[in-house]
Amino acid sequence: MISVGVIGYGYWGPNLARNFAELEGGELGGVSDVSEDRLALVKRRHPGCKTFSDYRRLLEDPSIDAVVVATPVPTHHPVTMAALAAGKHVLVTKPMAGSSEQAEAMIAEAERCGKVLLVDHTFCYTGAVRCIRELLQSGALGELYYYDSVRVNLGLFQHGVDVVWDLAVHDLSIMNYVLPFRPVEVSATGAGHFGSGHDNISYVTLFFENNLIAHLHVNWMAPVKVRRTLIGGSKKMIVYDDLEPSEKVKVYDRGVDVSRSDKENLYRMLVSYRTGDMWAPHLDLTEALRTECQHFVDCIGRRATPITGGAAGLEVVRVLEAVSRSMRERGGPTKT
Amino acid sequence: MISVGVIGYGYWGPNLARNFAELEGGELGGVSDVSEDRLALVKRRHPGCKTFSDYRRLLEDPSIDAVVVATPVPTHHPVTMAALAAGKHVLVTKPMAGSSEQAEAMIAEAERCGKVLLVDHTFCYTGAVRCIRELLQSGALGELYYYDSVRVNLGLFQHGVDVVWDLAVHDLSIMNYVLPFRPVEVSATGAGHFGSGHDNISYVTLFFENNLIAHLHVNWMAPVKVRRTLIGGSKKMIVYDDLEPSEKVKVYDRGVDVSRSDKENLYRMLVSYRTGDMWAPHLDLTEALRTECQHFVDCIGRRATPITGGAAGLEVVRVLEAVSRSMRERGGPTKT
Amino acid sequence: MISVGVIGYGYWGPNLARNFAELEGGELGGVSDVSEDRLALVKRRHPGCKTFSDYRRLLEDPSIDAVVVATPVPTHHPVTMAALAAGKHVLVTKPMAGSSEQAEAMIAEAERCGKVLLVDHTFCYTGAVRCIRELLQSGALGELYYYDSVRVNLGLFQHGVDVVWDLAVHDLSIMNYVLPFRPVEVSATGAGHFGSGHDNISYVTLFFENNLIAHLHVNWMAPVKVRRTLIGGSKKMIVYDDLEPSEKVKVYDRGVDVSRSDKENLYRMLVSYRTGDMWAPHLDLTEALRTECQHFVDCIGRRATPITGGAAGLEVVRVLEAVSRSMRERGGPTKT
Amino acid sequence: MISVGVIGYGYWGPNLARNFAELEGGELGGVSDVSEDRLALVKRRHPGCKTFSDYRRLLEDPSIDAVVVATPVPTHHPVTMAALAAGKHVLVTKPMAGSSEQAEAMIAEAERCGKVLLVDHTFCYTGAVRCIRELLQSGALGELYYYDSVRVNLGLFQHGVDVVWDLAVHDLSIMNYVLPFRPVEVSATGAGHFGSGHDNISYVTLFFENNLIAHLHVNWMAPVKVRRTLIGGSKKMIVYDDLEPSEKVKVYDRGVDVSRSDKENLYRMLVSYRTGDMWAPHLDLTEALRTECQHFVDCIGRRATPITGGAAGLEVVRVLEAVSRSMRERGGPTKT
Repeated sequence: MISVGVIGYGYWGPNLARNFAELEGGELGGVSDVSEDRLALVKRRHPGCKTFSDYRRLLEDPSIDAVVVATPVPTHHPVTMAALAAGKHVLVTKPMAGSSEQAEAMIAEAERCGKVLLVDHTFCYTGAVRCIRELLQSGALGELYYYDSVRVNLGLFQHGVDVVWDLAVHDLSIMNYVLPFRPVEVSATGAGHFGSGHDNISYVTLFFENNLIAHLHVNWMAPVKVRRTLIGGSKKMIVYDDLEPSEKVKVYDRGVDVSRSDKENLYRMLVSYRTGDMWAPHLDLTEALRTECQHFVDCIGRRATPITGGAAGLEVVRVLEAVSRSMRERGGPTKT
Repeated sequence: MISVGVIGYGYWGPNLARNFAELEGGELGGVSDVSEDRLALVKRRHPGCKTFSDYRRLLEDPSIDAVVVATPVPTHHPVTMAALAAGKHVLVTKPMAGSSEQAEAMIAEAERCGKVLLVDHTFCYTGAVRCIRELLQSGALGELYYYDSVRVNLGLFQHGVDVVWDLAVHDLSIMNYVLPFRPVEVSATGAGHFGSGHDNISYVTLFFENNLIAHLHVNWMAPVKVRRTLIGGSKKMIVYDDLEPSEKVKVYDRGVDVSRSDKENLYRMLVSYRTGDMWAPHLDLTEALRTECQHFVDCIGRRATPITGGAAGLEVVRVLEAVSRSMRERGGPTKT
Repeated sequence: MISVGVIGYGYWGPNLARNFAELEGGELGGVSDVSEDRLALVKRRHPGCKTFSDYRRLLEDPSIDAVVVATPVPTHHPVTMAALAAGKHVLVTKPMAGSSEQAEAMIAEAERCGKVLLVDHTFCYTGAVRCIRELLQSGALGELYYYDSVRVNLGLFQHGVDVVWDLAVHDLSIMNYVLPFRPVEVSATGAGHFGSGHDNISYVTLFFENNLIAHLHVNWMAPVKVRRTLIGGSKKMIVYDDLEPSEKVKVYDRGVDVSRSDKENLYRMLVSYRTGDMWAPHLDLTEALRTECQHFVDCIGRRATPITGGAAGLEVVRVLEAVSRSMRERGGPTKT
Repeated sequence: MISVGVIGYGYWGPNLARNFAELEGGELGGVSDVSEDRLALVKRRHPGCKTFSDYRRLLEDPSIDAVVVATPVPTHHPVTMAALAAGKHVLVTKPMAGSSEQAEAMIAEAERCGKVLLVDHTFCYTGAVRCIRELLQSGALGELYYYDSVRVNLGLFQHGVDVVWDLAVHDLSIMNYVLPFRPVEVSATGAGHFGSGHDNISYVTLFFENNLIAHLHVNWMAPVKVRRTLIGGSKKMIVYDDLEPSEKVKVYDRGVDVSRSDKENLYRMLVSYRTGDMWAPHLDLTEALRTECQHFVDCIGRRATPITGGAAGLEVVRVLEAVSRSMRERGGPTKT
């Protein structure tokens, strides 16, 4: 039985606490938060649970084996380092750190301590994303042409960060998990409308070594919620709509066949369109966080490397840094 | 009665021919095309109509008052110049020319000849776009934050051009019509997957002098058809979905109110969300081309300047040129 | 080349006229209508076409081989009888007659004259309905449980008939084509809101000899347009949404498995749910009327019996008569 | 502080238990269930909560002021009677009883004991239904023409009852709350496909004294989930789609204007269509059960009659009885 402490009981922490409380092989060993109101809520929801107003007291508790770091991003690095030093395994929320230097230090420390470090790239634990990964790995799509994601809604504004560091992290972590290639260059633009110096809408193009192109559109100020990804390949194309209640992934047998039979005119392409069946595979609809929390406990038990470990978290942070640099140059191309 | 000749009976020409044939105050005076098959089709559909295999013969016909130029883009300039020189009014399909120099020459020639020059920015004649224009002009949206359009589908590949010169023209012409501002800089990216040297997917960010940002996503290789534009303002937000059968324009009373009451902490914003009613105004669903053709005939009768005249066409071409330059620099910011 | 005359150029006649005008192996030989305005419209659209203000003159024209009867329902019988007597093949719009006696007389007369009689059950010629028929005939759905259709919209009110005689005809003709069983009893209800003595909203349940149940909901006064049919079977279930642009037919691998393993309690069922993939087969999107008109011409050439001949038309009328009887008894069950 | 005991911790009971546990002015005083597994789950979720394997022990607990009866329908009557006799206020899940005689007895007993009796017509506490009620009461729709509801999905089969006694209850309780009229006659049909003697699909027409007609379609065996109600009036029409995330209620300014200006022909109606704006009012999205539980506690404190009291529960049961009688006559009209 792995006892898990949750550090930070704000927006996301309660979901992790609830999952560990109900998990086979895990238990909620304690919760820390700087707010007494939040700790009172913990007491109501989890009556037997220990609470701490200082996370360092939680780290000193020898009955706790592992911790969740669900605090604001700037604190991910120091809290994680302290937790590892205290001998705890760590599940850190996304993005894993505010800089790649911090992320590298966290990875090195976990390695040194022989502890599990899992980055909460939640979507990688959904049935939909796992299905897409299998489709791409099987080669069903043929040559990959593009990956296009729209992730917009009204709120929740995050203080002190650009929207890409909040919403685009989801897409970058999914791409990191499902795509066989890594972006080599980005061009990103955005705008901020509230005088905070931070962008609330952003557009990111990612170039890959081959001809694959990816694009992310994130926006905290949209009138409607959209969570839609198009993935185009030479043989098949995917529409992944996370707001669909059950058919979240649709696979289209559609495409374009191009040939050049006209020797006289090299510039003339003969284009024909292929429009075949559509297919929506049945998906495992288990709550992603439950799968992820179970995976964390399993990795601790087996001393295994998580699917979304420090390496994945670092790659996402490095792309985010390149995105931020390109945004300052109004879309100027920037190496990752 | 204005007699209109149609030059080019390919994909779009038949729609213009049909509309002029059925128009009050107009008639279809002739059709020219290089293909005998297409002219045979004209004969079946419009039994009394004169046909020409050389458009110059059509231009020589004194009974024809005006022409539609529905030929490939590279020919827009020479055919339009010849038509104006022959004393015809001209309706030219979009984009009006392959370069701003050509567009300027066409405008100057129309001016010199005292003829009407209308650029076929079809969407500006839809009930939906006219409604959006009125909403924006009335100030109902408050300060404008962003304009975001997605225009993707499978096909129709246009030979010899990037997708932006085909699909993004629609959005640029709508923006030119409804927005009170003009883009000053662009950052554009894209990819081509068929070895033709032309991009079939593109992303375009447009920066304006104020804090407005616009973005276009165009793609000839998408598994599903999307025609959706989000327009965000400080007071209201619009979703314009051209595939909706009747409620194409939805106005949301949603937004974010930001204040800074915490003097101690300048970086802390107090954000509250406003979620009010949604409203879908009734739209005039008259076929846009019918309205446009009628407008062309009316302008000829009144010697008036069309809503979508040479000036609008030129502005669109200039932005397209900047887009093409930025795409060659992988998103590098480029002045319009 | 079969020359086809169209009798009645109101709402539906123009679609048939246009299709015969453009058909391989067919031509539009003439149009009759009592309205001079409508005939003027024919002249504009089909400049070479003969027009008649009295359909009897059209029937006397020896160059016309076949006619379309697109007049109001009460005239279907006399016009069709006259046309057959004049030696013409007949395509009659739906429902084929106002009573089963009339329908039987029309069938007998066509038989006697050796002429083709096709009833315009348009939907039977769509790719969607043909696909559904194949799925049902292949046994893919297992045992059939239910057929449920909703066909509602705002307008078009038909004068002098209940809504079932206008809209439900479509569903009855589709059911006649795709289902391997025939309804034996009906229970129908409805209401009229405009003092005309005719219902503008109706609900029809159809009972079959086996456990299959069908239901139709038709309404001329709905705020939105719905064209959706659910077909449930023991192995698969279908959703047919005619308003979807391309994926009109979706096949769901869903269902319920019921067993009774609890010998102690005969009333306790053990129910388990099956939720598998969804699949949308590619459909032929050819305009149904074109396929139907071609089929009419082919049947004439081969003296073949049409897919939707008099027998199908008669069955539909018989069910409509039972529906009308049940409606007068406020849902009282009525044999077909 | 009202202490509430929950009797029955199956499918719905946990939702009520959770709400009372988190309610202002209420607390979860105990839970009873015949299953030890379910009680173990209660212990995990509500660590301080008393549990009982016999509900009579719960009723004997003097610290408990009120109970929720969330047991199978056949037990609603005896458990409620015992609870009232034990001096508890009662919130009973829907339908309130298996017969109108039982419902009447429950009402009389609550009256005699001076206790609150609330029937869990959950939807009456949603923002959507409250909004519809206000629209109808304000006369915004004009004369009411029809109320049409579809409530279908795959599962959850209820043992021992027809689907109308499970799903149609929701619609009947909503209609009871929002409509100013009561049904006087019903015609109902259905079919059962699993040999249980109970119908899993049903169609119910309800006739009213005026020209209003209502219809319910309920089905446990549909491939997709639908929760859609159309309400038609002479001035406005409503679409209420409970699966929409936010715009659940849409009000359409659409309709038909009928006049008879043709004195010569009494049967000829002149019909014109009105197609105006659509409007989706902002709705209170508070969880309905929370509002209902709060209302229950408030009624206890004020000794007030609940919005959905015994009278509403009884009316729903009476209509269900008429529906069951009509179903046995295959749609034969039956007085309520």
